[in-house]
Amino acid sequence: MARILCAGLGPGDPDLMSVRADRAVRAATQIAYFRKPGRRGQARAIVETLLRPDAQEFAMEYPVTTELPFDSPAYNDALARFYDDWADRLAALPGEVVVLCEGDPFFYGSFMHLYTRLKDRVAVEVIPGITGMAGCWHATGTPITWGDDVLSVLMGTLPEEDLVRHMRAADALAVMKTGRNLPKVRRALATAGRLQDAWLIERGTMPGQRIARLAEVDAADCPYFAIVIVHGHGRRPEIAE
Amino acid sequence: MARILCAGLGPGDPDLMSVRADRAVRAATQIAYFRKPGRRGQARAIVETLLRPDAQEFAMEYPVTTELPFDSPAYNDALARFYDDWADRLAALPGEVVVLCEGDPFFYGSFMHLYTRLKDRVAVEVIPGITGMAGCWHATGTPITWGDDVLSVLMGTLPEEDLVRHMRAADALAVMKTGRNLPKVRRALATAGRLQDAWLIERGTMPGQRIARLAEVDAADCPYFAIVIVHGHGRRPEIAE
Repeated sequence: MARILCAGLGPGDPDLMSVRADRAVRAATQIAYFRKPGRRGQARAIVETLLRPDAQEFAMEYPVTTELPFDSPAYNDALARFYDDWADRLAALPGEVVVLCEGDPFFYGSFMHLYTRLKDRVAVEVIPGITGMAGCWHATGTPITWGDDVLSVLMGTLPEEDLVRHMRAADALAVMKTGRNLPKVRRALATAGRLQDAWLIERGTMPGQRIARLAEVDAADCPYFAIVIVHGHGRRPEIAE
Repeated sequence: MARILCAGLGPGDPDLMSVRADRAVRAATQIAYFRKPGRRGQARAIVETLLRPDAQEFAMEYPVTTELPFDSPAYNDALARFYDDWADRLAALPGEVVVLCEGDPFFYGSFMHLYTRLKDRVAVEVIPGITGMAGCWHATGTPITWGDDVLSVLMGTLPEEDLVRHMRAADALAVMKTGRNLPKVRRALATAGRLQDAWLIERGTMPGQRIARLAEVDAADCPYFAIVIVHGHGRRPEIAE
């Protein structure tokens, strides 16, 4: 029976994987990872230089879903069947399989849908990772939170009025799942009075990293995995002049 | 002139340091770390088995501050002088010095106060780390956020009414700097209707890790570094029965 070891890969630079995840990936004889059909997959790309040449690979290709609204029953059912099927297939593998997961597996990760299906059937261990958003705030070279700052993490898929409310209430912000939602995210930031402080970070810590003021980015030019960051400015001890 | 390399150490287990931080700590001939006077210091403890025997150590001991309110001018000045002095001392060291920082250095870390003082004077590089809160949600064995969940990170030092407002607004919560603030944090969670879902995690990923339902914890028995976690329950594709 399988033993599942999910390795959080961190924000993209292989050197930012944990020592434990690095060790697991290098030793793996069976690996599995999510990807969109026809793509190599970002998780697979991160471990390119680490894998054993004889590692057996299982590419878990998401069902094609762009033609269905993400909140429709048909989309839900297609994804549920996909996770059910892969949980069964991984559970039936002989020995250990390392599942690759970008960022931190327990922080908005697809692996969680396998985890809930597998944790009471086989041995499952999860290795934390540095989140993608942390890679992005490091890419800006500026700390994200100080003192008593409140940080809120928001998905660009939320309704605009919810985004505005949270953007007004928090000191620091990280907005993920931007992509097609970027015009909405930008409007919400403007309404909340935060647009001038917002940065768009693409491929944080990876080759081709790009950082721009969101107000200056062409909305047509935003990949799905770009993250919007607004830094906090909390309490900082300084000698008064 | 010094080169400053700040290594994020992650939540506590040395195996959860990044490959890059691990390499930097093992190679360091000069290390610096914060600690309370008279303590060994948590950052120093994490790297105990990794250091070169000839590494020169600089323990940056916080000024004794418990007798001053943290928002008083005297406390502010004492801390500002402390950071000013250490920035000067580190900048004057010959060659590279590795500054140890628990969790992620840009996420509520003390190093940020050195960073702002040093970044325009000497070369400074910061290595991200897995946050302490991520170590804590992994300790619970349950994912923190799903789908469109909003995660808010709160400090227990905030006023109770601010805590309540944010606890009501977000799906998932991480509350840090609990300690003496734990009774207030607990009251705020109860007012917001979230107390029954709250977990208290102490020493996440470290020896002596302890996890308990917050409602069942004796308020007198809470160390400063315990973190309160409330998990989100967002969208999860499952086949309807």
